[in-house]
Amino acid sequence: MDDIPVRPARIQDVAAAAGVSVSTVSNVLNRPERVNERTAARVRDAVAALDYVPHPGAAGLRTGHSSSIGLVLPDITNTFYSRIARGAADAAYDHGYSLVLCHSADAPEREQGYFTMLVEQRAVGAVVVPLSADPTRLSRLRERGIPLVLADRAMSAEDGCSVSVDDIAGGRIAVQHLLERGARDILVVNGERAIRQCADRYQGARQAVRSRREARVEQVVAKEMTVAYGLEIARRLDDLPDGVFCTNDFLAAGLCHGLAERGVRIPDEVQVVGYGDLDIASFVGTPLSTVHQPVEDLGRAAVEMLLDEVEARAEHAHEARVFAPGLVVRDSTRPASGG
Amino acid sequence: MDDIPVRPARIQDVAAAAGVSVSTVSNVLNRPERVNERTAARVRDAVAALDYVPHPGAAGLRTGHSSSIGLVLPDITNTFYSRIARGAADAAYDHGYSLVLCHSADAPEREQGYFTMLVEQRAVGAVVVPLSADPTRLSRLRERGIPLVLADRAMSAEDGCSVSVDDIAGGRIAVQHLLERGARDILVVNGERAIRQCADRYQGARQAVRSRREARVEQVVAKEMTVAYGLEIARRLDDLPDGVFCTNDFLAAGLCHGLAERGVRIPDEVQVVGYGDLDIASFVGTPLSTVHQPVEDLGRAAVEMLLDEVEARAEHAHEARVFAPGLVVRDSTRPASGG
Repeated sequence: MDDIPVRPARIQDVAAAAGVSVSTVSNVLNRPERVNERTAARVRDAVAALDYVPHPGAAGLRTGHSSSIGLVLPDITNTFYSRIARGAADAAYDHGYSLVLCHSADAPEREQGYFTMLVEQRAVGAVVVPLSADPTRLSRLRERGIPLVLADRAMSAEDGCSVSVDDIAGGRIAVQHLLERGARDILVVNGERAIRQCADRYQGARQAVRSRREARVEQVVAKEMTVAYGLEIARRLDDLPDGVFCTNDFLAAGLCHGLAERGVRIPDEVQVVGYGDLDIASFVGTPLSTVHQPVEDLGRAAVEMLLDEVEARAEHAHEARVFAPGLVVRDSTRPASGG
Repeated sequence: MDDIPVRPARIQDVAAAAGVSVSTVSNVLNRPERVNERTAARVRDAVAALDYVPHPGAAGLRTGHSSSIGLVLPDITNTFYSRIARGAADAAYDHGYSLVLCHSADAPEREQGYFTMLVEQRAVGAVVVPLSADPTRLSRLRERGIPLVLADRAMSAEDGCSVSVDDIAGGRIAVQHLLERGARDILVVNGERAIRQCADRYQGARQAVRSRREARVEQVVAKEMTVAYGLEIARRLDDLPDGVFCTNDFLAAGLCHGLAERGVRIPDEVQVVGYGDLDIASFVGTPLSTVHQPVEDLGRAAVEMLLDEVEARAEHAHEARVFAPGLVVRDSTRPASGG
């Protein structure tokens, strides 16, 4: 703090001076109706005092290099990825960078093609949601010489920054919730073991059950994590468990539908928890209790970590930032019992 | 055709030479497994004959100006917009341009801020899904001097290019389907009249009913086009119609749920058609018959029309391209009767 570099004020400086978050500063500048007047006045004072220029594009032009960031995603129409994109776009806008949407369409050649393009256009860096954790692919990306932040994938901080959500914690809080509401015979409806998120969520589920002597957990693996497979599993279950944790909301929606077909009452006979808090979770017949992931925050943090690396090269330290998921309680689990 | 300009081959030239669509050329280059070998060989021959360079970024670098296109959207997490983005990103990639994602977050100031950024970064043009049809706003955008294509909004071809889906036709085919499957007493569950799409869909519905002497149509307007309002309307209906056309799938999902609560059988007693073909349409209790919009095509066409304007200035003629919606038949309407 005793060696303040002489540089134009950034949005973080304004946030620090006003004692608010970067998002609040952004809201005051762009969506003032969302901020109460007293806070807004404090932010405006800080903007004036620091001579902060919120003009979009200005930061990039100021530093003399290109002002674009690549965002490489497998599929922008998947809600998980479009929420990352929203958080990333908001952060890029706040910092005066443009965000180049790179839709890799699940094709490795195309992912590489986008990297060639980003290098040619002298993008300052990229946020990448990799198609797979194939380490040779990732290292080839890094060899291109532009800073990268990986999203939705934890990475050793030696190799670069990454942002991800803690899936073990997610599985744990889902099953803890079932146990707290009285379930003892837990079924985990999961995707393929090879999917890292699925393995982690099941590990969390087992951790939760281990802490309860009288509880037990079993797993059934769906070939695909879709509504149709959830439905199929519900139809074929011989012995009903009293709690089901589905590792995504599609499986949970299908499972609930299949249980309803059999006349099973949710949550009285079987309680169900999903994962993801997708739109569908509140649309299905029985609104789903589910695990919420702070996905927009992930996208925003990825861009901000990338810009920290770009703008403050010497001071920058790589970080593997892990976000905590939370629980959203709806009708597919029992209300907390009084007392 | 007698005055062919000397310029590097574009993907359209390859498509024309091979007698296939631009998408097929793109597939051969990026996703060859999707194309049969005979077609792929024809495309590769055309690529060789025309010396076509599919290298991403190359087209923009070649012409000596920036190679980015802005895509200005109200909200990337809305499926309608993310599907536009996917189509636009695919087209931009195929033509060697980068697509800058501008998430206007429903804020006019921010939409303007993005335009300032695109001008500063010398984007070749922008595809804009405008927040509202406010004509002064749209003309201010055009005054910025970069070519624009409006998406999801028809515009006089004198003012520039636009792409949209024919909502009158969409309303018409939805209600025609209900009439063909035997419904005669049609209820339209609609959003506010001020929403252009809602007014158009209702107009189409009335056109369909007018052609059947014994049929009649009534409208109920939901305050918001959400599952909750659809549910509420189903609960409050005094006289049941035998066909309901909901002008979006959220209303339809809520309505079906509310009818099921009352013990009304779908489609035996009431047939329901939604609009949009969102994911939710196939997830709800009774999978919805609904109107499908070719939204990816819209995004792709918008980028290609913009590039036509940019790359072929003198030859370019503005066009208001209107796409036709289609019907997806699922379980919420009766099967076609034999004979």
